[in-house]
Order: sequence, then structure tokens, then C-alpha cells
Amino acid sequence: MNIYSFLQAVREQRPLVHHITNWVTIFDCAQVVKSFGASPVMAHAPEEADAMTSLGSALVLNIGTLTTELVGSMKLSATAANRKGIPIVLDVCGAGATAFRDRKCAEILDAAKIDVIKGNSSEIARIAGQAVETKGVDAGQVVADLREIAVSLSEMRACTVVITGAEDIVAGQGKVFVVRNGHPMMANLVGTGCMATSVIGTFAGATPGQIPEAAAAGLACYEIAAEQAVKKSDGPSSFKQQLFDCIYRLDEKQIRAMQQVSAGA
Amino acid sequence: MNIYSFLQAVREQRPLVHHITNWVTIFDCAQVVKSFGASPVMAHAPEEADAMTSLGSALVLNIGTLTTELVGSMKLSATAANRKGIPIVLDVCGAGATAFRDRKCAEILDAAKIDVIKGNSSEIARIAGQAVETKGVDAGQVVADLREIAVSLSEMRACTVVITGAEDIVAGQGKVFVVRNGHPMMANLVGTGCMATSVIGTFAGATPGQIPEAAAAGLACYEIAAEQAVKKSDGPSSFKQQLFDCIYRLDEKQIRAMQQVSAGA
Amino acid sequence: MNIYSFLQAVREQRPLVHHITNWVTIFDCAQVVKSFGASPVMAHAPEEADAMTSLGSALVLNIGTLTTELVGSMKLSATAANRKGIPIVLDVCGAGATAFRDRKCAEILDAAKIDVIKGNSSEIARIAGQAVETKGVDAGQVVADLREIAVSLSEMRACTVVITGAEDIVAGQGKVFVVRNGHPMMANLVGTGCMATSVIGTFAGATPGQIPEAAAAGLACYEIAAEQAVKKSDGPSSFKQQLFDCIYRLDEKQIRAMQQVSAGA
Repeated sequence: MNIYSFLQAVREQRPLVHHITNWVTIFDCAQVVKSFGASPVMAHAPEEADAMTSLGSALVLNIGTLTTELVGSMKLSATAANRKGIPIVLDVCGAGATAFRDRKCAEILDAAKIDVIKGNSSEIARIAGQAVETKGVDAGQVVADLREIAVSLSEMRACTVVITGAEDIVAGQGKVFVVRNGHPMMANLVGTGCMATSVIGTFAGATPGQIPEAAAAGLACYEIAAEQAVKKSDGPSSFKQQLFDCIYRLDEKQIRAMQQVSAGA
Repeated sequence: MNIYSFLQAVREQRPLVHHITNWVTIFDCAQVVKSFGASPVMAHAPEEADAMTSLGSALVLNIGTLTTELVGSMKLSATAANRKGIPIVLDVCGAGATAFRDRKCAEILDAAKIDVIKGNSSEIARIAGQAVETKGVDAGQVVADLREIAVSLSEMRACTVVITGAEDIVAGQGKVFVVRNGHPMMANLVGTGCMATSVIGTFAGATPGQIPEAAAAGLACYEIAAEQAVKKSDGPSSFKQQLFDCIYRLDEKQIRAMQQVSAGA
Repeated sequence: MNIYSFLQAVREQRPLVHHITNWVTIFDCAQVVKSFGASPVMAHAPEEADAMTSLGSALVLNIGTLTTELVGSMKLSATAANRKGIPIVLDVCGAGATAFRDRKCAEILDAAKIDVIKGNSSEIARIAGQAVETKGVDAGQVVADLREIAVSLSEMRACTVVITGAEDIVAGQGKVFVVRNGHPMMANLVGTGCMATSVIGTFAGATPGQIPEAAAAGLACYEIAAEQAVKKSDGPSSFKQQLFDCIYRLDEKQIRAMQQVSAGA
């Protein structure tokens, strides 16, 4: 896969990526989109859900700080995105932590066709029907094979499934990609998971005809930048600054030298 | 115009700048006020709108992530600000993107006397009644003369109008100022527009008798700091860090050497 | 007091610290918890208040951008925390600025047993019944003796009281600690007070049997990191970055060399 070509598509098309997301990492979700050269917008009033979503090239939903009202707006936006035919990425943040989150995820998944379901191992396992527990928003233990879970959920929901972790698994349209870029320092920074979701939305918005490939390419670019950022960091906050700067400066040579993406059936 | 004297007024008086703003850049709006030496406060409960606004020296309203409830609190705060006689700055963020935003801007403008209306070119053109479209929260194309739009809206609403862009136009009280400071890197950082609004509120709060001058001076100071920050940056995030630090350290010599503000009738 | 042993407990136990906090500093509250090696979670839907709180080791409440609905969720979470027996820290942010804040603080304090009440001098004085005024969220003038106020409120509410300032006072269980670490630069950064509250919650969550000691130790660690961070800073934003990095790297030697905590009856 030519990872760089997906980054080129983002930078040339500058997709408008609409978000209904959480209040913790909302700035970082917007900034990661902008650092990649695309255009973020965040809005959650139900009265403009339809109109704002229709301006966009992709929709990112993240239930991190969900309320019933916010999920109501997510459903309206998702319906509008389906109507316009733009990809929807759902971060099932905290699924498996409370029954309320599980229920709201199910509601969103039933209200519209979601193109990408993204979470950590215990979140995705829970959405796939396993009896696992998420520790707040951090992954709990999952005993089953993650690749099998991803493929099975992907088939069940006819969508792309992304499980992030030391290795990221992307399963969709009968394909599986494994992304081995990234660095353990990412776990010390709040929001790296949420930003990954926004990156997937950005890349899917630029190449909506190749969603699993776009998700894998986006994760690879984001995590290559993270690897570069760690080298210039003394801790989680200098890492964060370098991460945005490295994303902004990411070039073809770096991507070709560092990409660790493998594809399989 | 002696730009530095306006910064001095801010640092000496340390105005309390009350905000009802958006959830994306709320921290940065507060931090830019604090970096200039003033005191930010953010609160949006309708029950305390009156009391909190009355403690302040200026009120900043920003509709970036508006809801009907939040706009309700904005109207209450605006009414309290008018009663106390403190300046109100309204960022018409995303006007022209959805009919809901246009309608809510009109409601706020009709509910109270707004002292400064601020936006990018397509947002202000829309408020001035032109049929332009805003791309999410990024400027769309405007064919008319921006200076004419600013002056005309300023007269129609008896307020100061600020259009930010490569050149900022400030029109109010029969005067027009053009601020040519700033740097294209600002467009790569989420929130530079929102922060500009908070800066205008801060300067207007310190010198409420000279609102157009305060707005131009505030923008010049903010953008001089941005020019300095770019020199020490490798991308949008190191730029952001340097921006706050440069604002904090801004001195008379830098301002006199770098200011590019021209005044005209 | 062996300050370092409290940091060790945090790093070993990695307590899950649940927050219902404000929208201005919500990221920083989460990141400070994570930088100390613990696990933050932020959620405010009333439907999951009970379930999410019950996963945690501590609950942090901060009324910075309160609404009636948010305080409703705080009361539900506080009740759940009491039932589970985990410590609750309440930041009475802005108490004394509006009657609404005073009333909501009283409601929270009456709804559940709060383990730590934390604020600046005028906020705590107001909660203790004094007729002082808070300037937005910045401390107003208090003429009474702060140590007496802390001890008296601590006895009245049978809890630990923390007053932050140039000197932090921690009064609880018949003990008083004074923490003299920290640096004036902290006042130039938005959120240092909110982060202090999250730090107290983190340390109390790791050593719930010694809450006054945990609060003093947490403040000392946080402020030692702040002292280190200032040395590498050019302003409030580079200070912020260094603060998180220094917290992340904090070690026993630094703590032993720099700690300024005195204990008294």
C-alpha cells in the first residue's frame, strides 16, 4: 500500500471533517485534523446537525463525555451523513465501562450505517458482544483473539473495525491490515486514542472509496509522526507538541522509511 | 496610534473578561487573556449570568459550539453587560455555515447592544446580509470589498466591526484601521480566531472609551507576538507555545519596531 | 512525612480518578492525573454517574463551569462515592463570586460527605461563612487568619480543608500541614488551581486512609515539579509543557531535596 498517496489526498482535498466529540480532547481532535492539512469543525446543536454535517466530507462521533442530548445530535448527524454518503467514524470510547455507554453505542449503530467502529481492545470486544470490562476509558483485559473479533464485528456490522493498541488492527471489506507504528509514550498522553479517530475520519473523508486502506494509512502516518516526536521529547507534554509539529511536517521520505503496515486477507 | 499604551492599560487595570464561548478553544481563550496580564472567567449557567457578568469589565461571546440554551445565557449576559455599561464583543463564528447560526446571531444582535462584531470575511459578509457561504468555521469566498462591508455593517449596527484575515479591518465610530501584522502560520493553529476575539475583549475592557482603537491595538499586539513566535517554531504546536510566551513577554520596543497599523477615515 | 512514599503509592496503584469538572481545564485535569501515572476518567451523564463513579478510586468535583444539570450529576456521583467509600474532593471554584455558586456548593456539601474541600483563600473563606468576594475565579482579599479558617471549616464539616496560595494550608483530622513549594509563575497559567484539585484526588485515591497527608504530599510533588519547570520556561506556556514533563519524571532525589512541608497540630 502506498501510504503517502493517502496523505497527499488529504493535503490536496483538505476535507472538512465534522465532529461531535467529547469535551476533554475536543481541541486536540480539531488540531490533529488541521495539522494534517484538513479542516475540522465541531458543532452539536440538534438544530444544525443536518446542515453542518452536509457541509462535510466525513463525520467523526466520539462518546467520551456523552449525554442523552449529545447522542441525540449524533444520531441526527449520522442520518444526514448517510443521506449525503460521507463516511462516519464512531469512537466507542468507554464501551464496557457502563451499561449506559453500551446502550448508547447500540442506539447509534442502529440509527445509521456507521462506516468505521474504532476503540481499544476491551471497547471493541464489548461492542462485539463479549463480556469484558473497560477501566474507565482505558483498555481492560481481553482473552479472545483481537484479529478474530475485528473481522467478526466487521462482517456482522458490514463496516470497518479498528482496534488500536501496540498493534492496530484494521478489518473491513474482507481485508485486514496491521499497523505496527507508534510508541508506548502515546499511552502517557490523554487523547491519543481520540485523535486517532479524528485522523481516520480525515483520511476516510479524502478517500471514501477505500475506507480500510485510508484508516490504516492514517494510523500509520499519525504513528510515524509519534515515533519521530518521541525522539525530541522529555515527557508527555513535549511529546504532544512535537506530535502536532511532526504531523505538520510529515513527508514522503519519512513515511517510506518508517511505515510498518502489513496486509492480509 | 500609540499601540503600547493600550497594552499598558491592560496590564495595569487587569480587566476581568467574562466569556461565554465554545468548548474547542475555551482554554486558549482564557490563557490568552491571562497571558496579556488580565483575568479571564468562563461561566454559562443562566442563573448566574447576571451576577457574573456584572463583576466583569468586558463580555466576550463566541457561538462556535452554540446551543439554544447557551445562546439563552448569552442574551442574559449581554443584557447585564449593557446595564452595567461594559463592552460586548461577539464572535459570529460559523455565520454563513448554517441557517441556525445566522438566526442565533440575529437574535443576539437584537437582544442587546453589541459593541464589536468580529469574524472572518465570509462570516461578517453574511451578517452584513450578503449571500455568502462559510466552510464550517473557515472563511468562504467573498467577492465584495471587505472594507466597504465593515464600514456599512458598522453604521447599520452602530458598532465596531472587525474582519480578520491576512489584513485585519477595524471599522467603527467613523474610523477605519487596518492591521497588517500576523503570519500565515496562524491559519494552521485551531483557535487563533477565537483568541483574537478574547484579545479584543481584553483591550476593550481596559479602554472602553476607545473601542475601535483598542480593538486595533489588541490585534496588533497579538499578531506581533505571533510574528515573533513563528521564528521560534517548527510547526503549529510549538508556534502555539511560543505565542503565549511571546504575548507574556511583549514589550514596548518590540511593539514600536514591528507595529503595522494604519488609520483612515 | 515521607512525601515520596505517597508518589510511589500513586504510581504503583494507578488509581482511576473520576471527574465531573469544568470545560476550561478538563484536558489539563486529565493530563495531570495521567502524568502522575494514574488513570483519569471524565463523564457527566446522570444515567451513568453511579456506574462510572463505582469504577473509581476517587471522585473529583469542580464547579468551574457549573450548571444546575451538572451539579445534579455531581450529587449522584458523590452519593455513589460515599456508598463505595472512596474519597471525594470538591473544588469550590468561584465560590464568593455569585450567590448561585455559594448555593450550589452548599447543596453538594449537604448531599454527601465530602472528604476534601479545596479552594483559594476567598473561596474557602466564603464556604466557611465569611462575607468575602471572589473576583471571578481569582482570589479576593481575606482579612481573617487563613489557618484558623481552614481548621474551623475542617471541624465544622468533619473533612480536610485545603487553601491554596503562596503557602498551601491543609487542615484535617486535627492536623495542619503547610506546603511552601510552588512558584508565582503558576498564577500566570490558567488551570493550576484545578490541576491541584485533581492531584489531591489522585493522591487521596491511592492512600485513602491518610487524606490530609495525601493532600499535602500531592501538592508538594506538584509544586516541586512546578519549581523545576519554571527554570526551563520563558513564559506561561513553556512552563505548562515543562510542568507535565517534570511531573512525569519526578523522582525521589528531587522530592527529598526540594520538599517544603511542615506539620503542626
